[in-house]
Amino acid sequence: MQGEEAASCRPGEEELFSLREHRLPDGRELLLFGRSAHRQEPCESLPPASPGAGSHLRWHPLRGEWVAYAGERQGRTFLPAASLCPLCPAAEGRLGEIPFRTFEIAVFENRFPAFSDAGGALPVLPPGVEAAPAKGRCEVVVFSDDHRAALGTLSDDRIALLFEVWGARVEALGREYPHVLPFENRGEEIGVTLHHPHGQIYAFPFIPAQVRRAAEAQAASPVIGDLLRHAGELEIEALDEAVALVPPFAMYPYETWILPRRRAPGPQALSGSERQAMARLLGRAVRRLDGLFGSPMPYILTVQCAPSGFEDSFHMSVEIRPFRRDSGKLKYLAGVEQGAGVFLADILPEDAATRLRALPAGGPA
Amino acid sequence: MQGEEAASCRPGEEELFSLREHRLPDGRELLLFGRSAHRQEPCESLPPASPGAGSHLRWHPLRGEWVAYAGERQGRTFLPAASLCPLCPAAEGRLGEIPFRTFEIAVFENRFPAFSDAGGALPVLPPGVEAAPAKGRCEVVVFSDDHRAALGTLSDDRIALLFEVWGARVEALGREYPHVLPFENRGEEIGVTLHHPHGQIYAFPFIPAQVRRAAEAQAASPVIGDLLRHAGELEIEALDEAVALVPPFAMYPYETWILPRRRAPGPQALSGSERQAMARLLGRAVRRLDGLFGSPMPYILTVQCAPSGFEDSFHMSVEIRPFRRDSGKLKYLAGVEQGAGVFLADILPEDAATRLRALPAGGPA
Repeated sequence: MQGEEAASCRPGEEELFSLREHRLPDGRELLLFGRSAHRQEPCESLPPASPGAGSHLRWHPLRGEWVAYAGERQGRTFLPAASLCPLCPAAEGRLGEIPFRTFEIAVFENRFPAFSDAGGALPVLPPGVEAAPAKGRCEVVVFSDDHRAALGTLSDDRIALLFEVWGARVEALGREYPHVLPFENRGEEIGVTLHHPHGQIYAFPFIPAQVRRAAEAQAASPVIGDLLRHAGELEIEALDEAVALVPPFAMYPYETWILPRRRAPGPQALSGSERQAMARLLGRAVRRLDGLFGSPMPYILTVQCAPSGFEDSFHMSVEIRPFRRDSGKLKYLAGVEQGAGVFLADILPEDAATRLRALPAGGPA
Repeated sequence: MQGEEAASCRPGEEELFSLREHRLPDGRELLLFGRSAHRQEPCESLPPASPGAGSHLRWHPLRGEWVAYAGERQGRTFLPAASLCPLCPAAEGRLGEIPFRTFEIAVFENRFPAFSDAGGALPVLPPGVEAAPAKGRCEVVVFSDDHRAALGTLSDDRIALLFEVWGARVEALGREYPHVLPFENRGEEIGVTLHHPHGQIYAFPFIPAQVRRAAEAQAASPVIGDLLRHAGELEIEALDEAVALVPPFAMYPYETWILPRRRAPGPQALSGSERQAMARLLGRAVRRLDGLFGSPMPYILTVQCAPSGFEDSFHMSVEIRPFRRDSGKLKYLAGVEQGAGVFLADILPEDAATRLRALPAGGPA
């Protein structure tokens, strides 16, 4: 076998996962997570990634946020034919990032990372413009080896495994970086360049200002706990350990949050049964959104975890921001959202929750 | 003649504009700005707008921003055929918002306002969720009576008149509301529902948190003045009184800012020659962007003006955020931008400025 490999599992939990650590020929890490141990021989994968020139950050003094510059991302893979999908198993006579015949969930370092520990000189900037290396890590999380799958068609158990993966990566990357964000961009409508079901994880070398504000708000007042206590007609569906609801201050039409009832700073702190409840509600929430206008809903899903230093007050959330506000109509962030930061919402959260509740949430296909 | 009308002009400036104040049958205000006085008889216009139920605001405790809820906007006009355009002169055998045969620049109250002083009871919300009436004003600014025009085809003088209009409205609305934002959304790619060249003006009943942060940053340090002093290779084009540049911390590919050299809190404080310089650079900037990939550039243009209380330190800017990053590829705000507030930029600002400088900026068509 090529590369360094190891197997591990997390004991003392209701579920167990197996982790295989593999190293791609260019040195990038590939992690295979599964309910059963992964022991296939690797085959040939895509040619090595060329070492990046290094991204960098510049401080936006008017927004008070870092902006990340990564010129090399312009060349990233753009909507390849399904037969060339780099996230499909590489072994079926085609090359890919994952050199195995089958897998459950695979995580690997992004070939085109916006954040990485690759060196690189900082550009010469005008006086007063602050810059820093964009140290960090960008990972791709492949939810299934089935190109046509989606969060809404995966089994509850596979989604529960995904929560384990998110937890394991948030925990591992959180030891090195002050903020970790797992997310999924879904749909060509919002620029997704690969259709194979996958998400990403970004580990930032700083706490983004927007994240810090949210964490400080939670430290000052139990915002999420209050939401859970008073959800009422905003609830879409509730289990003993988790709730799906539309927040009363939703910015997007049919915005859906999945929350554990017990405060946990991130998926790494969920119990097995909490993960199962979160997973079940997440799959059902996506199916409701897909059913809303009769076509797959384009959305951004983020797993909001405690940034460093806020673990004792932060209540994690899985937030789905849908981008379709009506049949054939997308939600855009235009002048008011971008020029003033004020979101305009067309749908009342209460009405969105009522409509979502009434939709079938089925089982996975 | 119907409605209340008056004519006025601003004396003591290099340019003079005439203003005709007209009231539509449903009570909405229509202002006609022009270099020459407007004296046509009004004809029939669109049926009156039905009084709105009133929008409202809810406080987003994690973002620290207000979100505006305006359910009635779902019914707004969506890409009508050119022959039904509500912004074309109404007098040519079709109905429209503007009941005159011709006009230079027209401003009227939006038929589907997200902010207005219409009453309306606040909804009953869960405990702890703060709400407020969405008092304010939303205006439509029609740049020309020619359906096929665009900022890039208007004469420099018409754009200078537009700066006068922006200034007059910022001044008038700023007496009543603490922040006023003139902007233009352009392109179906970002959800523009009417192709007739037009922008909008929003007057907010609060200072948006993002705007306040930017104003506080400017109050603490002359960010824009420093930019102007050290623009160097970021400059696209410079005149004695105004500069077009790519900010060194651009969030969008080919982001272009037009800045007056002298600090002015908004267009109302520009001199006639400053307006002319700003207008000339704005038209040329749009033509460069349109030429970049050989098709009209979808963009958001915002006129960032001092919010109330920051007039003595704020340096206004006209900011164009283009949404095309390459031929056939749009810039999307996805998981990282939305989940963390961190923008990922593919193009270095220096490279963008170099490329924009090299493009023809022509004259208006």
